[in-house]
Amino acid sequence: MSTKPFLYTSLSPALLHLYNLSNSAVVIIDVFRATSTIAAALHNGARCVIPVDSVPKAIEISKSIDGIAAGERDGRIAEGLQHGNSPLEYTHEFIRDKTLVLTTTNGTRLLQMALDKNADTIISGSFPNLSAVCDFLVAEKKNVVLGCAGWKDRFNLEDTLFAGAVIHHVKNKFAIHCDSSLMAETMYARHKSNLVKFAPQLTHYHRLVERFGLIEDIKFCLTPDIADVLPVYNDGKLVPK
Amino acid sequence: MSTKPFLYTSLSPALLHLYNLSNSAVVIIDVFRATSTIAAALHNGARCVIPVDSVPKAIEISKSIDGIAAGERDGRIAEGLQHGNSPLEYTHEFIRDKTLVLTTTNGTRLLQMALDKNADTIISGSFPNLSAVCDFLVAEKKNVVLGCAGWKDRFNLEDTLFAGAVIHHVKNKFAIHCDSSLMAETMYARHKSNLVKFAPQLTHYHRLVERFGLIEDIKFCLTPDIADVLPVYNDGKLVPK
Repeated sequence: MSTKPFLYTSLSPALLHLYNLSNSAVVIIDVFRATSTIAAALHNGARCVIPVDSVPKAIEISKSIDGIAAGERDGRIAEGLQHGNSPLEYTHEFIRDKTLVLTTTNGTRLLQMALDKNADTIISGSFPNLSAVCDFLVAEKKNVVLGCAGWKDRFNLEDTLFAGAVIHHVKNKFAIHCDSSLMAETMYARHKSNLVKFAPQLTHYHRLVERFGLIEDIKFCLTPDIADVLPVYNDGKLVPK
Repeated sequence: MSTKPFLYTSLSPALLHLYNLSNSAVVIIDVFRATSTIAAALHNGARCVIPVDSVPKAIEISKSIDGIAAGERDGRIAEGLQHGNSPLEYTHEFIRDKTLVLTTTNGTRLLQMALDKNADTIISGSFPNLSAVCDFLVAEKKNVVLGCAGWKDRFNLEDTLFAGAVIHHVKNKFAIHCDSSLMAETMYARHKSNLVKFAPQLTHYHRLVERFGLIEDIKFCLTPDIADVLPVYNDGKLVPK
């Protein structure tokens, strides 16, 4: 009997330190909306996405490479930027052959943490690229840590639901001894047939929809495989594999 | 319309810092087994339980007050102690009118963290004293933080299920805008009719049952209201209210 690789789910960046990343593939999950936006941009032909941790850095880098500076803070377009964190902004017409320099509240920070912890491989995941993520993890045969970005270190359900979706599809290929993963899959199984209908119960929904009217963003971010590309982090950039 | 107090669920000690405890009642939850054992001891007539963070301290204090030093590390009786963290050890015959000085891996540490964060009121909760906890929280009309002890900072499902049980019973009296609480209640609703049958899926079950054979402990710890006392922390001691 061959030994299966392990799979763990980290429910918040504040829990990431509990997992050994050095021999693992880490999936950065920020469903509303960073990793959905990354999938959309790359699927629509962006050359790459450069995740950065501050607005000034986004502006500086985008200027030096003639890229698009974009990002949000607390759910809205960050001050000083013209483009935000909505996957719907990054159409084929707009983003094709361009580089997106993106800064976000939670996802970018988690990616930096995974880098600091010497993750072996870093990819980004969201419902729009669910199948690409699952196919990659199964093919790699490496230990996996599903890293939920949460909201300012708080647990959130949308990232957990995506972790559950991945587990649902790949679980036969991994050894999973992890209550977080069991919970995530249970929550996903419960809500998978109507994620959009469930969304109004999420705290983040109120932030995005009631304050900013972003219901179309929510729908995009909860639709599996509509931007089915695999963003892999390499040397400062997320590039489609 | 009167404003309802808030209720939040902290899924791990590593997330407790995200919540404001200074005007809140904090429920320490360590289902397997510290808070179940505390309920059992007080229900069976212990004068009080003194939670301490080390074995030497447990021995020293118990000697000075003629109490019972007890505790576990990694699921078994701690070296140097004669009594462990099993609720079944603390029968009426054994513990009546005595003081239990208890040190545990997770629960004791979380209680100390809540103290350090100036929690307004600290109580301990477990299935054996579920109703006492719910009645108290409803009567207090104060903000609530349900604090899961987890396992060495990792999320665990048994503590989450108890948080869900509390939420299930008190939710109409509180304003709950918290994905952790929504998840906890969903998981509880899914498994409440047969918690003991679900238990073998928990990582901690394997630690306790497969390694130490503690199935009777598990059953006790998952039975609502069989030790329905309310342990309230006051001046270094948990005393029955």
